[in-house]
Parts: sequence; C-alpha cells; structure tokens
Amino acid sequence: MKAIAKVRPAPGVEIVDVKEPEVGPGEVKIRLEAASVCGTDLHIYTWDNWAASRIHPPRIIGHEFCGTIEAVGVGVTDRKVGDFVASESHIVCGHCRQCLHGQGHVCVNTRILGVDIDGGFASHVVIPSQNARITDRSIPKEIACFQDALGNAVHTAMAGPLLNQTVLITGMGPIGLFAVSICKAAGAAKVIATEVSPYRIGLAHEVGADVVLSPAEGDLDKRIADVAPGGVDATLEMSGHPSSLGLAVRSTRPGGRVSLLGVYGDPNQSVDMNSVIFKGLNVQGIVGRNLWQTWDQMATLLLGGKLNLKPVITHTMHYTEFQAAMELMKAGKAGKVVFTFED
Amino acid sequence: MKAIAKVRPAPGVEIVDVKEPEVGPGEVKIRLEAASVCGTDLHIYTWDNWAASRIHPPRIIGHEFCGTIEAVGVGVTDRKVGDFVASESHIVCGHCRQCLHGQGHVCVNTRILGVDIDGGFASHVVIPSQNARITDRSIPKEIACFQDALGNAVHTAMAGPLLNQTVLITGMGPIGLFAVSICKAAGAAKVIATEVSPYRIGLAHEVGADVVLSPAEGDLDKRIADVAPGGVDATLEMSGHPSSLGLAVRSTRPGGRVSLLGVYGDPNQSVDMNSVIFKGLNVQGIVGRNLWQTWDQMATLLLGGKLNLKPVITHTMHYTEFQAAMELMKAGKAGKVVFTFED
Amino acid sequence: MKAIAKVRPAPGVEIVDVKEPEVGPGEVKIRLEAASVCGTDLHIYTWDNWAASRIHPPRIIGHEFCGTIEAVGVGVTDRKVGDFVASESHIVCGHCRQCLHGQGHVCVNTRILGVDIDGGFASHVVIPSQNARITDRSIPKEIACFQDALGNAVHTAMAGPLLNQTVLITGMGPIGLFAVSICKAAGAAKVIATEVSPYRIGLAHEVGADVVLSPAEGDLDKRIADVAPGGVDATLEMSGHPSSLGLAVRSTRPGGRVSLLGVYGDPNQSVDMNSVIFKGLNVQGIVGRNLWQTWDQMATLLLGGKLNLKPVITHTMHYTEFQAAMELMKAGKAGKVVFTFED
Amino acid sequence: MKAIAKVRPAPGVEIVDVKEPEVGPGEVKIRLEAASVCGTDLHIYTWDNWAASRIHPPRIIGHEFCGTIEAVGVGVTDRKVGDFVASESHIVCGHCRQCLHGQGHVCVNTRILGVDIDGGFASHVVIPSQNARITDRSIPKEIACFQDALGNAVHTAMAGPLLNQTVLITGMGPIGLFAVSICKAAGAAKVIATEVSPYRIGLAHEVGADVVLSPAEGDLDKRIADVAPGGVDATLEMSGHPSSLGLAVRSTRPGGRVSLLGVYGDPNQSVDMNSVIFKGLNVQGIVGRNLWQTWDQMATLLLGGKLNLKPVITHTMHYTEFQAAMELMKAGKAGKVVFTFED
Repeated sequence: MKAIAKVRPAPGVEIVDVKEPEVGPGEVKIRLEAASVCGTDLHIYTWDNWAASRIHPPRIIGHEFCGTIEAVGVGVTDRKVGDFVASESHIVCGHCRQCLHGQGHVCVNTRILGVDIDGGFASHVVIPSQNARITDRSIPKEIACFQDALGNAVHTAMAGPLLNQTVLITGMGPIGLFAVSICKAAGAAKVIATEVSPYRIGLAHEVGADVVLSPAEGDLDKRIADVAPGGVDATLEMSGHPSSLGLAVRSTRPGGRVSLLGVYGDPNQSVDMNSVIFKGLNVQGIVGRNLWQTWDQMATLLLGGKLNLKPVITHTMHYTEFQAAMELMKAGKAGKVVFTFED
Repeated sequence: MKAIAKVRPAPGVEIVDVKEPEVGPGEVKIRLEAASVCGTDLHIYTWDNWAASRIHPPRIIGHEFCGTIEAVGVGVTDRKVGDFVASESHIVCGHCRQCLHGQGHVCVNTRILGVDIDGGFASHVVIPSQNARITDRSIPKEIACFQDALGNAVHTAMAGPLLNQTVLITGMGPIGLFAVSICKAAGAAKVIATEVSPYRIGLAHEVGADVVLSPAEGDLDKRIADVAPGGVDATLEMSGHPSSLGLAVRSTRPGGRVSLLGVYGDPNQSVDMNSVIFKGLNVQGIVGRNLWQTWDQMATLLLGGKLNLKPVITHTMHYTEFQAAMELMKAGKAGKVVFTFED
Repeated sequence: MKAIAKVRPAPGVEIVDVKEPEVGPGEVKIRLEAASVCGTDLHIYTWDNWAASRIHPPRIIGHEFCGTIEAVGVGVTDRKVGDFVASESHIVCGHCRQCLHGQGHVCVNTRILGVDIDGGFASHVVIPSQNARITDRSIPKEIACFQDALGNAVHTAMAGPLLNQTVLITGMGPIGLFAVSICKAAGAAKVIATEVSPYRIGLAHEVGADVVLSPAEGDLDKRIADVAPGGVDATLEMSGHPSSLGLAVRSTRPGGRVSLLGVYGDPNQSVDMNSVIFKGLNVQGIVGRNLWQTWDQMATLLLGGKLNLKPVITHTMHYTEFQAAMELMKAGKAGKVVFTFED
Repeated sequence: MKAIAKVRPAPGVEIVDVKEPEVGPGEVKIRLEAASVCGTDLHIYTWDNWAASRIHPPRIIGHEFCGTIEAVGVGVTDRKVGDFVASESHIVCGHCRQCLHGQGHVCVNTRILGVDIDGGFASHVVIPSQNARITDRSIPKEIACFQDALGNAVHTAMAGPLLNQTVLITGMGPIGLFAVSICKAAGAAKVIATEVSPYRIGLAHEVGADVVLSPAEGDLDKRIADVAPGGVDATLEMSGHPSSLGLAVRSTRPGGRVSLLGVYGDPNQSVDMNSVIFKGLNVQGIVGRNLWQTWDQMATLLLGGKLNLKPVITHTMHYTEFQAAMELMKAGKAGKVVFTFED
C-alpha cells in the first residue's frame, strides 16, 4: 500500500510503498476515508528539535483520520467489520496510577499514533480497537477525521463551566476556532477571541466569535476589559504565544480559570504567580482528551448539529498531495487541511 | 485603651493610647483575650515596599485574635454579648460577582483588618459581626486566636483530596506546619516536608511530617522521587521561595494538583509551563479562607482533637512585648508568637 | 396603603388598608412595580391543611415581586434608593450549619415572605436588603417579578450537566415551562416534556420542548424509550404527581440524575428503591434557590436573551383583580399571572 | 479440579470435579489462595426467587477471591504469571454509554462472576485480565480475597465527604463493618452505627464505631439526635431493612447525603419524598465499585494500614467445608467467612 512516511532523519516526508499491516490481538484494521493534518505533522515534516528527538524513522505519519473497519483481531468484542471509526491518537497503558484514576489522558506510558508507532496517512492502518472510536455515519468524513483535534478543544472548553460565562480564547488556529464554536454551543454569554493573522481573524468571525481582537491594534488588556468589565470568567489559551499567558492571568476575573492547551516554544515562561495566588485563579494544564468522556461529549455535540465547523475546513485534497498541504500549513494559509483517499 | 499601631510611614510600631472604638450598625465589639503575629504584621513593622504602598498610618495592626463580645450594634441578630469569637481578617462586600458566586475569598472589595482598617492588637476592637467567628469555649484561646492563619492552611490543604494522598508541603513556616497536621488528620498516606532552617525542621518532625527534607542536603528531586515514585499527588507550596515552585511542578504526578499559598518576593516567576500542560497539572492560587466553609471545616477539625498544633506555638508573651516578638520573627526563631492581654 | 391579605383563618383573601411599613436596620423599602402569583398563594387562598397549619393571620401574602427601592435602613451598604430589585422569598439566618456550608437554601431557620412574615402584594413592602436582588433595568418588570419562581427552575435544571443531555421534565406548570426554556438555552440535546392538560401542552410546545407527551395517550415509558433509547440523562420532576416519580426512576439511564422539585400531596411515596440502587441513580431533593449562585446564573441567562419566557405569562392584570387571578389559577387556565401596580 | 457449584435448579451446592478452565484471549488463569463468602452466594445456596430467575446451572459459584496468575492469554499485556491478584466481580462491556462516561459500575451489559459465568470457589479460575486486580503481596490473602466486598464499602463511604463528618451507618453486616473502619480512617468526626444483632453489635464496637445503637432498645430517632443534634451529615444505608430508609431520611441534616447500598426484599419502599425535597437531600444509589478509582483508593487504604478489618473475619476454613460456612451465614453467626485452598 501507499503511505506518507518520514524515511530518514531529515526534513521532508515521502510517499512510500509498504506492506499492508496485519491485525494483531486486540487490534482493528481500518481502510482510510479521510484524514487531516495536525501541527505535529508539520513539526515532523520540518524536522525540528522536538521531532528529531522523538521520531525514529521510518515512520508512517498522521494521527487524525477516519475510515471503515476491515478486520478485527483476536479478543476484539466491541468493534466489528464495517464500523465507521475515527482515531484517538493516544494509546494508553490502562494500568498506571493515572489510568487507574480515570486520568488516562496523562498516562505515563502513552504512545502516540504517527509519532511513536505508525500512523494513518496511508490506505490502511492497524490500531488498538479502543483507539478506533465508533462514529455515527451521519457525521461527514471530512469532520469525523479530525475528532482527535476537535477533542482537544472539547476537553479544554469543558474543563469548567461555560453556560453564561464570558470566555476569552487566545489563538485562532484550528483548535481555537473549534473552541469558539463549542463555547457558543454550550451557551457561553460572550466569546472574545484574540488573533494576529487577518486570515484567521476572518475565520474567527465565521465560526461565531462575538468579538475578535488583534494584538496588533494595541492595548488588548483595555479592550478586553471594555467588553468584560471585572474580567472574563475563563481563558482558553490556545496560541502557545508567551504574551497570551500574561494576558490570561491579567484578564481572568478573580476565582476564574485559565485552561492552557497551547505549548510554548520555550517551556520556561515568566508568569505573575502572585496574581495567580491573590486572584485565586485555577490554572489548568490540558492535554489530549478525557478518555472517554470527551469522545462522548463530542459525539453528542456533533450529532446535535450545533457546531459550526465547516469554515475551519479550508482545504480538501488527495493525500498524495501532502507536499502542497505542508507548505500551506507552513505559510499559515490554512485552517484544517483534509485529505481524501479515493483511488 | 492601649493599642499597637503604625503611627507614621516608617519602620517600627508603637504602643499608643487611643479612645475605645464604638460599635456601629452590624458590628460587634470584642474584648481581646489572645492574638498572634502574622508575617504581614512583620511586613508592616519593617515597612517594606508592600507596606509602604498599602498602609495609611495611623493604623492599629493585628488581624489574628480572639476574645469575648462586649457589645453588639444595631441590626446584629446572630451574635450576642458573651460569645467567644475569633477574627476573620477579610471584610468582603457581599455583592460583587465573586461574592455572589460563593467566592468571597476573592472579593474585589476586600478590606483587611489591621491593614486597611484598624486591627486587633489592642484591648478592644470593633469588627463586622460576621467577621467575628463564634468559637467553642473548649478551644484554648492560644489556639483560637490564630484561626485566620490556620484557615489558610485548611483552605490550601482541602482544595483537593487528601485521604491516602502523598502530599509534598514546601516551607515549614507556621502555615506549612499547620498544613502538615491537617493532612495527617485527613488521612494523607504520606506527608513530605521541605525546609532549610534546622529550627523549623525540628518543628516539622514534631507536628508529624513523615519525611522532612532540607534543600541544603542536595538533590531534592531525587529524594522526593525515592519517597514518592511517580510523583506526589499534591504539592502545597507555602514557602514563597522560587525554587519550590519548580520543585512542585517537577515532583507532582501527572494529573495532580499544585496549590500555591506562599507569595513571591518577585511576582514574576519562571515556570515550566509545558510541564504543567503535558502533565495535566491543576495549579491553584489560594488566598484567604473559603467563606464560610473553611471556618466550619476548621471548627470540626479543632473540636475533633486530631490536630497537633501545640508545637507551633513557640512563644507566648504579653502584647506590650511586641518589640521582642517582632525581632524573634525577623530572626526566624519562632513558630507562632501568641500575645496575651491580661491586665 | 392597600394590600392583599389573609385576614382570618378561612378561605379567601381580601384587600385591606394598612399602614405603610417602616424600614428597619438592614432592610430596604420597595415600591412595587409588578408581582406574580405562585401556587403557594393559591394554597393560602383556598386555606388547605398546609396553609391552616402554617399561616397566622393577618398576613399580607405574595412573595414574587419586583420594584424600586425607596428607602434603606441603618447598616445597609449594598443597596441604594432607586435600585431596581426583585424578591428572594427565603430569609435565612446566616449562621446555622447549613448557611455556614453555603447551603442557605436549606437553612433550618428560614422564614418565607408572604408566609411567615408579611409579603409583597401591596403598594410597598419592607424586606432584608440581601433579599432584594438587584436586577438590570433591561429586564421587563413582567419577568423580573417572578425570578423567585424562575430561580426554582434554574436551581433544579442546573443541579447537574445539561449540555448535550437528554432531559425529561415532568409537569408543565410555570416552573416546568421555565425549565424547558433553561435546558434548551443550556444546550440540552433533547427536552422531553410530560403534561396532561392540553392547555399546558400547548405552552410546552411554545417554549420549545422537543417532544411533549401526554400520559392520557398511553404507554409513557415506551414513548420515552423510543425518543431516548437507554434512558434519559436527567429527569426534572416538577409535577408533584406520584406517577411521575416512578416514571423518573424507570426512564432515567443508569448513572443519571433525578431532580425532585414538585411536592407531593401525600409525603409518603412508594418508590422502587432497588432500581435507584442498581441503576446508581442520584436522586436530588431541590428546594429554593442556591444563595446566591442561582441568582447570578439567572441574571446572565436573562441578560443573555436566550430564555423564551413570554409564552408562560398568560395573564397580566391589576393587583386589585386578585380574585379573578385566583380563580384562573384554580381552574388550571393560566401559566403565570402577573400583577401590575399602577395607580 | 474441584469446584463448588450449583448443579441443578434447587437448594444447595455441591463439590464437583470439572476440567480446569483454559485461558482465552484477554484472560488470565488464577490459582486460588483464598476466597470469601458473600450474601449472594447464600442466595444461590438457598435458591430464592432472585437466584432461580438469574442462575442457569451448572454454575461454579464464588466471586470474592484472590490468588496467583498461572497463565495469561493472547493480547494480555498488563498482567503476568506470578502476579498476586484479587477479583473484581463485575465484567463490564467498555462501550455502553455508561462505560464511556466513566460509570462502568452501572454498565448495562454487566456479567457477574459466579452468577452469570463461572466463579472462583475452585482450585483455578479464568477471568478477564482487567478483572484480576493486582494486589500488593504485603496484604494478607485473608484480606485480599474480599476486596470486592470491601470495595462496596469504599465506594459507598467515599461517595461524599467524610473528614469531620458525622456519619450514620445502618446495618453492621460485613460491608457495614468495613464502612465503619473506612470512615474512621478518613477522619470522620463520629460514626454512629445501628444494628439489632448483639453478635454484630459486638463487632461494630471492635472495628471502632463511636456509638452503636440497637433499634430494639427504643427510640432511635431521639438517640441519634442526642448524639448528632441537627442531624448527621451522611447516612450509609447498608442493612436493606425498610425501617433504616425512613431513619436515614429523618436523621440526615438538610443538605446532607443518604447513600444506599443495601438492597430491599421488596423493591417498592414508602419514602417521605417531601422531606427529601424540603431538606434538599442527595439520595445516592450505590452499586459495585467505581472502575477503577475505588480499587486504587482501596489499595492505598490497605497499604496505609489504617483499616481495622481483622475483627470482621470471624471464620477461616477450607473451601471444601462450604456447607458449614453456608449454615453459619444463614444463622447470622458470622462476619466474613474466609476459605483457604491449601491441598
């Protein structure tokens, strides 16, 4: 079969011919219908420090995908041939302290599809059955494929109350855009977005942000305070930009929450910790998806038809056009790029 | 009456003669029985930057005290003459967004006894009735007086689960020592304390810490990991020392909590925020006491007789000996200093 | 001034001339703008067993109202003349164990306006300042007046998750109708209502119930299961009808919640407790409003403009027409009846 | 191998010779070291209505046991030969709505060891790997074996706060006795037990109940109110006796919780639901164990050494003496009966 793989420890990925994987005990084999490109894929493509230290080529990349089960392995009782499924990229151990506490999203033995083991930018992929999340056929494949990323947004947004809350979302990448839509569906009183790229500011308006503010236009603190006197109830930090971290601490009301999803280029960030303390803020590190509540919440959100996700899908192309996709992503000229797999 | 007051914007406090305060509507007048010295009093005494910017002399200091109600003002229905009460130092507005949400501890209109209005290092004090917390007479006055500080420890410790948890407490000042005792009473599996002062290390052992580690003796990370493989469930940061913040993030297990009470000399602290994110940590800023759940929790803890607080009371002296008390505090040669008020 | 009062221990109420009340310490005096009739008023009017045992005439009735503050008493700092306010009917003590735990809604010393002390069906009323909840002037007085009842619905609905939940609401009296609107605003996936009166079935459709089922048309269990296979996530029981209690236990999915607001004619009800146990249900008794979180949630819901409350206001009349109002209520031919107070 | 089985649909069980089971995919094979007798085994033994409707002979009984893994099936990665394990009797599906919500304890597809499939009163048993909970070797086998039952008590007790709470536990069967010990370890202020059997009253004192009251000695309500004025914070109902249900509702303070574990002979019980409502009680149906948090909580409780469980083990005998065990249980003359399996 054909697959997109990192074949050597250097920038770039290639399309390669490999043997179709065989299903083992507890696993399912999926024929791909759609996939989408994550920032992680771009890191692997550009071969930055993180990628060079984590990836051991050859490795088929891609961890956001959906498709149909073609075979199930020994011991699989909860999936069957023909099921429409999407990928949860985190394979967790089930027996570490975190897994036993219902905190599998921070399992210390996590292996990630397309990173630590082969992923799904290929005609077929084999993954553990529980990582193949059954998805209703009424969900279009162009949306079903990126539930792993959408789940990040669901996890972050739903880590605290949303109904009637004023929410600041910093960073309008795909996950930030998803979060806007989720907060609106959950009855947030007001969603304030920040973003510097005019392209993404446009997308933020399309998905329903009440107010979109650009740091380029000056005093963000004041403009947020004008919209949310006394501070916002919650800030969802999705930019990974250092300035947003300080903004979050300053703009969130006493007793509010700051939910951090965006990863920083430099892990060490200067934070006004005395404000965190005196304001009684709750600063939450968010990673992955709650296993499996986030998936259930996402299913009902998707089936409820209240999410406005279409504007985020800015490009759809055949997976063999991956080079063009990567370059679009690098240029910041894309929301979500979706791959199709028709022959 | 006699009172200890900051009379001019300069270091030091003095004993002064002032008119006994009169009770107004909604207030109670308390005859002091005991009081205790807080680090805040020391800040005011030494007249550091914070004190200089916040305090408007003349001001009677002291916010940790207990005594008997001698008079109640118009409209007071829930306190009566003769009640034994202790001080809650935060006077909250009751109508800001935080107060309405049951988050009075982060009321934006908070006024603090002995800081923003006159305090209780005096023979008599007048405070709002609800700030005079009724205390059972079976609680010794030497303990009843410092419930405001003990409440900080209760609030911090009980901001997450404790039963069977492994808890790291950084900093063995009085509140850290209180926290050790609370965690043990609440069924913590293991309490690991860090402290550099040999004097306070001794106190930590006395109040029941399972393990006390000094940063002076080398690799704290490793020694904590030896005692708590995989990380502690919770860290209570009570030192205000920058190194403890990093230690907390590194030593807490994925999915655990870091509760911050200790205020930092420099508000801006460098934190490994990517670890906070990837470990899914919950970093909680803690201030004051939950109004009024913390007081109720504290009452039952005190009445239950399970707290080991006596070792923390290292000095008891008449309130007119305040100079000696301040110097002991400055030298780090004291746990809690308690003032008596007998004529 | 004129007031509607129970003047003797017998059926009926009368309009009487009484002295305008004077404001005491901690109280405010309100000039009425609108009020609404509660089922409790009807109980007092018809003088049923409950009323006969609880009410000590003469008593001015009415506890749902709004108006403008005309005077404030000594010690009132958080309300001022001219504020637009609505009534919280429960006057709580602030110092019982429940109040101290943030559970003032079950204060053991609760006194109720219009029941235990004089109420607000009058040109003026005096109540404790904190029971006069400041309301934004943009909320029409016809809606502002019934926030006490709306708050019952908010409290019940928000006692568990709503986003994406399938919710069964039994009983389409005014509070049930309010609950439909709240659940929809909070993003419920589906709201199933039950009601026997064709008049109220019509109102349920108007406020946005997805499905309205009449017990009169046969097998409710099956019809609910058709709409919600596997059970509903939550049932809000607002009818006080015994059959709804069993329906709730049978129709709620394992691990779901049953929130009970409707009071039963006979307190002793037969319940399949083994189902409660084996299904791991959470059965919540709900009373009053969370003080004061419910009021804050309600304010943002009202200001957010997402509630569809107008259809519930079926009648508006001058308060002196109270006899007509009571008879409409008795006949079940009314949603909410609102009184006006213009001269 | 030898096993204790229900071989025909009639009272009694027999010891039979059967083929040793073979391990399948995802399963482990355990050599028994100890087991204990549950009330459910007694129901099967006496062949009551429930047993006759649920059990399809032949069936090896027993679901509380521990032992050593002798073989692991295909696809098992988290257990290995030699592991010391104890049984979780509920085999859950992992993909129903409840399982996906982290509520596996109310999985609608639950199959129970020794009830729906063969159990562990035998020299060997084969169960799904995740139902074999790894147990520290420092836990004596006589205690390790009954963790399934102990887990019921942990689940019930820890369904709400315990620290400083006054807890009423009705019924001093083995699970009630376990609950006393757990509540004390968790820092409960006071544990009040009710029990009618003098034998069990003695055991309740041994495990540390502060007060043990017999319904036989008259007015329980008053005697509980004397010990807990204003009501207990929580009631754990473990008797399955109808009178305890009413007692729970009357004796629990407003805003408290009533956690129900004991199953009733007649499912339909008359309850004062208006009290549940007006007191704002939280009535929780409890079943099984939270998967897997309860097991983790239990592990730390056991390893912490704070539980006083020995008094509950009143009899230890070889498993072939099952007839004697059953008759002891029937006579109410036993706490926990533990079986050994030495040759």
